[in-house]
Parts: sequence; C-alpha cells; structure tokens
Amino acid sequence: MKELTADEKAYIANLCKEAKRASAILRSVGTAQKNKALEIMAKLLEENRSKIKQENAVDLENAEAAGISGALLERLQLSDKVIDSIITSLHDIRNLKDPVGEVIAGWKLENGIELNKIRVPIGVLAVIYESRPNVTVDVGALALKSSNAAILRGGKEAIVSNQLLASLFQKALAEAGLPSNAIQLMNKTSRHLVPELLKQDAYIDLVVPRGGEGLIRFVTENSLIPVVKHDKGVCHVYIHETADPDQATKILINAKTQRPSVCNAAECVVLDKDYPEVAQILKTLQEAGVTLRGDSKTQAELQKLNIPCENLTEEGYHKEYLDLEISVKLVENLEQAILHISEYSSGHSEAIVTRDLEAAHEFTSRLDSAALFVNCSTRFHDGGQFGLGAEVGISTGKLHARGPMSIADLTTSKYILRGQGQIRE
Amino acid sequence: MKELTADEKAYIANLCKEAKRASAILRSVGTAQKNKALEIMAKLLEENRSKIKQENAVDLENAEAAGISGALLERLQLSDKVIDSIITSLHDIRNLKDPVGEVIAGWKLENGIELNKIRVPIGVLAVIYESRPNVTVDVGALALKSSNAAILRGGKEAIVSNQLLASLFQKALAEAGLPSNAIQLMNKTSRHLVPELLKQDAYIDLVVPRGGEGLIRFVTENSLIPVVKHDKGVCHVYIHETADPDQATKILINAKTQRPSVCNAAECVVLDKDYPEVAQILKTLQEAGVTLRGDSKTQAELQKLNIPCENLTEEGYHKEYLDLEISVKLVENLEQAILHISEYSSGHSEAIVTRDLEAAHEFTSRLDSAALFVNCSTRFHDGGQFGLGAEVGISTGKLHARGPMSIADLTTSKYILRGQGQIRE
Repeated sequence: MKELTADEKAYIANLCKEAKRASAILRSVGTAQKNKALEIMAKLLEENRSKIKQENAVDLENAEAAGISGALLERLQLSDKVIDSIITSLHDIRNLKDPVGEVIAGWKLENGIELNKIRVPIGVLAVIYESRPNVTVDVGALALKSSNAAILRGGKEAIVSNQLLASLFQKALAEAGLPSNAIQLMNKTSRHLVPELLKQDAYIDLVVPRGGEGLIRFVTENSLIPVVKHDKGVCHVYIHETADPDQATKILINAKTQRPSVCNAAECVVLDKDYPEVAQILKTLQEAGVTLRGDSKTQAELQKLNIPCENLTEEGYHKEYLDLEISVKLVENLEQAILHISEYSSGHSEAIVTRDLEAAHEFTSRLDSAALFVNCSTRFHDGGQFGLGAEVGISTGKLHARGPMSIADLTTSKYILRGQGQIRE
Repeated sequence: MKELTADEKAYIANLCKEAKRASAILRSVGTAQKNKALEIMAKLLEENRSKIKQENAVDLENAEAAGISGALLERLQLSDKVIDSIITSLHDIRNLKDPVGEVIAGWKLENGIELNKIRVPIGVLAVIYESRPNVTVDVGALALKSSNAAILRGGKEAIVSNQLLASLFQKALAEAGLPSNAIQLMNKTSRHLVPELLKQDAYIDLVVPRGGEGLIRFVTENSLIPVVKHDKGVCHVYIHETADPDQATKILINAKTQRPSVCNAAECVVLDKDYPEVAQILKTLQEAGVTLRGDSKTQAELQKLNIPCENLTEEGYHKEYLDLEISVKLVENLEQAILHISEYSSGHSEAIVTRDLEAAHEFTSRLDSAALFVNCSTRFHDGGQFGLGAEVGISTGKLHARGPMSIADLTTSKYILRGQGQIRE
C-alpha cells in the first residue's frame, strides 16, 4: 500500500487529538445538552432539505458516471423519504434513555466499602462504512447520545453528501454548546489512510466496520484497536419434519423475500428430506421469484420432485446472496441439520420451524449464533424489533456486543468504591 | 521472525481443531460434570505433590542456570504453600455459580414473541502468560467452569511444571467423561509460534495476554483474534488538601507497601502542595523503605522540606516500579491532580483521600480508570476483594470486560426467540 505523506499523517493525528479532546468534555455533559444538539440537527436537516438533495445529486451523478447502478445507487440516494427517516431516527435517539451514569450493579463489601459499577462512555469510536449517507447521521447521533466522540469514515461515493451532513452536525453541536469535533468526518477517503487510522490505539477505543466481507477483513487485519464487526448474515431456516406446513411456508417466504438485501434475510433453507411438504414449500418459494441452488445430492432429490435447482458447490453454502436466490439443503434429520448449519452459518440468525419441543430445544441449545428463532422469521433480528431502539448494526462477534448493537453497547463501565479509610490486610 | 516449518504449522492447526471440537461438546455439558473434573483435579494435585515439586525443581534449576533470580524465580516455584493455594482455588471455582445458561434478560415483544438473552460460553480461549505455573491450573479451571476450551501458552521457564500440571488436568477431564483436549498446553514454547496461533480467528474466539507491556504489545500487534488485555497498573493515590492525615498515611502506605509487586499497588503519589502534612506523610513513606522520585519542580519543593528525592524525567511518571519506589508529584489543586493522572495513568486504579464531597465527585466522575477509590486503598482492586470470585486478571481494556475479569466475563450471550408463526410485515 501507498506510503503516507507527512500531511496525511498529520491529518489523521489531528482527527484523533480533536476526538480525544472532545471525548473528555462529553464525559461529563448532561442529557439535556446532548438532546438539544440532536433537536437542532433535526431542525437543520429540515431547513436544508433542498441543499441536501442538491449535494446528493452530485454524488449520484458521479456514481452513475462511474458505472454504479441498481441497489448500490439506491443506497446512495437521499430522497425526501430517506431524509424523513433520518429526522425520525434523530427524534427516536433523542428520546432514548441516556445510558451514561446508570448504576449497573452495586453492593457493600464486608469491610464496609460501598461499590458501584457505573455505565460510562467508551471514549472515541471510529466507524467505517460504505455508501449509505444516512449512516453518518444515525451513527453520529448514537455516539453523541452515549457521550462518545466519533470519527466517521464513509464510502467515497457519498463524500459530497457526507460532508454536508457532517458540517450540519458540527453546527448543531456548536449551537448546543458542545465541541463541534465530537463528530468528525474523514474528508480524505483514500483507502491507504485507513490503516494509519487503525493504528491509533492511544486515541481510539473501538472500531466498528459496517460493510462487506472484504472491508471487515481489511479492518481486522490492520487494526491495533478493538473491533466489533458487523459481518455478513448467512442465515438459515430449517424446516423440521413436524413443521406446520402453512407456518413453514409463511416464515420461509418472509425470511427470504420480505427484504432480501439485508443481513437478517434467509440465505439457506434446510429441509428434512422425508417431510411430505418439501415440494409444495419450495414451489411456493419459486413462485415468489426465488432461484433455488443446491449441491448435486440436493439437485438429484429435487429433480425427482420436478423442481428446478441450480448447481451449487460445497463452498457455495457460505454465500450471502442478498437477492432472490437461496441455497437448499436436504438432510436426513435434525442432527444433520445442526451439523450443516454449524459448518456454514456466519453466526448471525437461524430459525427452526417445528412442532416438536425437543427439536426446538436441541436446535437452540446446540447452535451458537447471535440469535435463534423458533417458529418465527429471522427478519426480527433487529434492535428496533427487539425493543432495544436504534442500533449501530448487528454484531456477529462474540466479545462486548453480540446481536443488535444498541446504545448501551456504546458504553463500558467503571467501578467506584467509597470507603472510610479501609486498607487491605 | 523465523519462518514456521510444516510440522509447526500442523501442530498449531491441530491444537486449534481439538480445542474447537472440545468446545462444541462443552457447550451442552452440565455443571455437575464440570465440577467433578475440578474435584478430581484437586485430588490429583494432592496425590502428586512430590512429583510436582520434583518436576518444578527441574524448572528452578534451569532458571537458576540461566541467571534468573529474585522475584522471577520465586514466582516459578511450586512450594507446598503454592500447591495448597492452587487446590483451594480449584475448590473455590468448583463452588462458583455456573454462569452458563443464566437468563440475563427477557421480555415479550408486542407481536407475542418471547425473547430470552442467555449467557453462553465464548468458545475457545487462548491465554498467554509468563512464568507462574499456578496460572495453568487457575485459568484452566475458570475456562472449564464456564464451558470454554482453552489453549494455554505459559512461559518457557515453567515448561516442565506446566506439562505435568496440564497432563494432570487432562487426566481429570477424561476421568470426568469430558474431552481431555478441553485444556491444552502449548508444549512448543518458541516465541515464533505465537503469531501463528494469533492468526487462528476461525478457531479461537478470545486471546488473553497476561504479563508485561512487551508481551501485551506483541499480542495486540499480531492478533486477528479479539484481545482482552491485562496491562500494567500505574496507580495513583491523590492526597487532597482536606485529607485526614492519619487516613492519608495509612492508605498510601498500604497501597504502596502491602504488596509492591502487584498491579494494583500505588506507583505515584500526588499531593496538594499546600497541604500541611506533605512532609510528615512522605517521611513516613520513606521510613517504610520507599524511595521517592520526582520531577525537578517536585525535587525543589521537597528539598525545602528536607526530604531526599531522586530525579525523575517527565516520561518517568509512566513507570510501573513493582518495587519499593514511588513517583511523587506536587500539584496546585484538584484540577492539576486530575490532569496529571489523566496524562500518566494506565487506566487501572486511582484513589483520592479527601474530606471534601465535591472533590470526591470531581475525581470519580472525571477520571476514566477501571476503578476509582475514595478514602480506601487501591489494593482492593481484585475480583476476590470485590466479591466476584476468582479472576483471570484485571482488564485494562474498555471492551467486553473492564476491571476484574471474573467467570461471567468468560461468557457471551445469545438471543433465543420463541414465536407462534410470526413474520415481519
């Protein structure tokens, strides 16, 4: 990778120092002042609607000229509807309970010392994401509400939109009497600056990469800072031989087709081979526009049932389609289903449809994914649906946060012990 | 660093695969069976006392031949007293509540789905530590009790002792009907194998380095696996101008001298310059055998008080002595004390001695260390003292675990959602 210039190094160093300085101030700022900044930001977005769309049009034009189209282009767009949803999200985050200062636990030691475990901000967060500019505001707002400073590094396609959104956020912070550098956007989007950012473990406490596998691998390999990764979702729906056919069909169709482009959508359906409704369920899935893919054994079985199925190698079962495609695996029994899912899952979400209590128990106790669903759709794996409020993303790591990374996960704790002269004997 | 041979690569790969296989079994093992293995291990240690001391003598002899002496040699020794304490620790861990399966939280979603957040083992742990062989048993026992498989990499000085202890542990596991490779010791202790171990993020879920700064930096720089670090403790005692002199003296002497070689011992005393008892307190500290060190300004002030003080550079305030030495800093007021501690602390433990409520509040709210003490000794920063039971160490990181890393911190969580056919609209 390209060597950094002295200017580029100084640029990163300055971002970090400013973030750390802001973080020390945010640590003792009250909820009212943070809420005020969020309210001002919502008002600024409303007032600057036409300017936002205008700047966003520049990004869209550049992206089209660079040959970007379809879902990627759509994600980049700041329509009135998207701006509305960002404003709603700001109000929602404003209304979240402030996690900072919560006494998580507390007790008195035998020697009379009173111990409190208190929720405190993590400090400085770096969030690295792809082209969606709404993330700039959503993540900035979550960081602020939890008293963390944030360095945001969005995709280069969204740079013009992001710069405007970040400058509005900085204005809102200043108007609320907070350090404007509590939220900083990396204006320089060359990829070779990212490893330098990821080495600043003296300043940055947590890195959150949100995006494709390549980005996450890149961050993991280059970071000296702890990483909470929001990786792909290779989510399974397993249809057990005792499943209610209507329920199985409804859940599978929902998990696969209700919003195929998101990480909690199903990517593989596992079915007990002898379940009488296999053909009917897969046909309904195909009628919903979904292409089936399976290994040669599955293909051969489906051929007998007169169901077309594209070829899939063993490796293919690791695939996250994010589209109207699905891997199919026929198994002998629950045991094989669990082994298959253990092997190919990305640890995100798995569902079982069954009427058998023991099967449900085996499935949920032996599989080790962030969320396991019995007789309901994987699509519920979401902070809002869980009732946790806005989320930074779905953590597929096991440390610090697992599943929806909500505002409480943007905090750590410290112990405060109050004594009357106690010493250790 | 030296290239790995094919044999060495295969050795690491095999350790990892065995650990992962054991971890899948441990996930659904009950508490009684884990306790049984711990009881057998305690019995085996008792039965093999003389053999343990015999093998340990080999390590001690090699260490002495290599010029190791003093505290390092002492830590390596498995005396009857140390063996007793390992056995006691096994019984204590056996009696700890099993964290696995605890329902951390649970509620019903609006759509009727029942959500449970359950405590589950992390999976595979790698623990990298220095010469103390008791860690092999202590950490192995904590890993087992929390249903985690562990790969242990102790210091090469303790290899003969560690091999015996690990083989006894594997025997205990097998006798209890558990996979003996749930606890594995790295027999090959060449340092160049460690980076290869730290790349196995497909198999290992968490790395815990316990030791000096060099080891921790080495692990952080080479690991693709999440790290919870147990770093040095540059702990401060701040004596505020309103402090009760007797309390201040007692707490400072305890924090510095009760056990100087541990991470929660004080390494720096900060005093308000105009506090009338400065001279008396520092003299008492010197009479307890402690050497004072300070920057030129502090030296000059102490000279006026006729107190000898060795020279210290600014950088010196970062130092962890682990011995009867202490850095001294005289400040104008609380504000300066907070700024000094923020700058030089390692984020482990800081104490204030004061009679002023506002000063105590400022100190505990503005400083961001794992534990803050008001009018009591930093020496209480310990899992056992906090009432959390045996600990892996004191985490100085902010993610996942901060402060005493107890058995609950060796777990993560998963969500289980039970529905009746719910789909997302």
